Amino acid sequence: MTDSIDNKLAARGITLPTPAAPVAAYTPVVIAGGMAYLSGQLPFGKGGEVMTGRLGDTVDVETGRKAAEACGVMVLAQLKAALGSLDQVERIVRLGVFVASAGDFTQQPKVADGASQLMLDIFGDAGRHARSAVGVPVLPLGAMVEVDAVVAIRD
Amino acid sequence: MTDSIDNKLAARGITLPTPAAPVAAYTPVVIAGGMAYLSGQLPFGKGGEVMTGRLGDTVDVETGRKAAEACGVMVLAQLKAALGSLDQVERIVRLGVFVASAGDFTQQPKVADGASQLMLDIFGDAGRHARSAVGVPVLPLGAMVEVDAVVAIRD
Amino acid sequence: MTDSIDNKLAARGITLPTPAAPVAAYTPVVIAGGMAYLSGQLPFGKGGEVMTGRLGDTVDVETGRKAAEACGVMVLAQLKAALGSLDQVERIVRLGVFVASAGDFTQQPKVADGASQLMLDIFGDAGRHARSAVGVPVLPLGAMVEVDAVVAIRD
Repeated sequence: MTDSIDNKLAARGITLPTPAAPVAAYTPVVIAGGMAYLSGQLPFGKGGEVMTGRLGDTVDVETGRKAAEACGVMVLAQLKAALGSLDQVERIVRLGVFVASAGDFTQQPKVADGASQLMLDIFGDAGRHARSAVGVPVLPLGAMVEVDAVVAIRD
Repeated sequence: MTDSIDNKLAARGITLPTPAAPVAAYTPVVIAGGMAYLSGQLPFGKGGEVMTGRLGDTVDVETGRKAAEACGVMVLAQLKAALGSLDQVERIVRLGVFVASAGDFTQQPKVADGASQLMLDIFGDAGRHARSAVGVPVLPLGAMVEVDAVVAIRD
Repeated sequence: MTDSIDNKLAARGITLPTPAAPVAAYTPVVIAGGMAYLSGQLPFGKGGEVMTGRLGDTVDVETGRKAAEACGVMVLAQLKAALGSLDQVERIVRLGVFVASAGDFTQQPKVADGASQLMLDIFGDAGRHARSAVGVPVLPLGAMVEVDAVVAIRD
């Protein structure tokens, strides 16, 4: 069976990285009740470094959007590692997006769209999710964005 | 069949608005595994404008509480649009409440009660939910409060 | 039937406190669809006082870690009150950890480990959870840390 989702990733020029090990005493994915719960994922750049900074301060919206997409790529990498194949995804149910923000930066939705659009591009209608996007003052390792997820899995 | 929940809304003087369209590339409600997952809802005033400001800074607790209730009204409007009738709600399971807060404002629970009390008033015991309320520096569009939800749906 | 989890708590020197009453109009635990959803729990010290302060400002990592553990103890106390026995826990699925943080404090994972390690110590593999840890400017009552949870329950 071909992994059609992998083809879509390839078409978008995305190679899933080796998923990041947890920074601490927890696990990246727990499957329970037909859902995969994903730990908050940080954005990593091409060189494997964490993308750091604060929106509205040291970082512009487009860079933040790329960071959110990088978080989304890591969500996919963790899902694939846990499920074997992304074809096991029935629906991206929910994304929680935390954006490191200066006090006057209010475009968290535009930043979070970097992760949301990725899910739509890869999964089509099954990628259409509920979402919360909020500003926070600071994230682990100084990351720009953190994204967690709830994903429905096929039987 | 009468929509008894609509009657309770009417008794409380609430007319559900046309639900707000998502600010970005996501969807307001996803139903999966018997649960409705709602995107973070912002507070809209009578004129349709987003209620903006920061608690402990430009906004007092009572205004914040009204904003949280306005978020709750939007949760109900989105649920009704997705389910057809609020009588399909089995239980309000969880609210996540993010309150735009000055660094010394610590009354997030009093603010969040605006949304929580609404759920109790409308659904009775089925409206009694788990909740997290936290301070954040800033929210999308400068909103005072953002509320997301997990809701159990009847078979 | 012995409560083996209580034995593990005793071995770690933890006596579960009377669970904290909600600060407001909600409930500590909702069970739906085989999952227990826990409200955000605050950290209480030996004297029953809320542990207050901000990481990277008035509080060091080790104290923050103890506060996160205290939140975790309250998660367990609430679960036991709701379920009768912690042996009913099938899996700690997810922890959401909010850390009151100065703008340059980026070690939220080390703080959150106080709650995560507790779950591993008490439940073993069943305590291994997904997690999000983020910085926030301020929490209810000035608390250092707030932890919410999703927990799978045995049939």
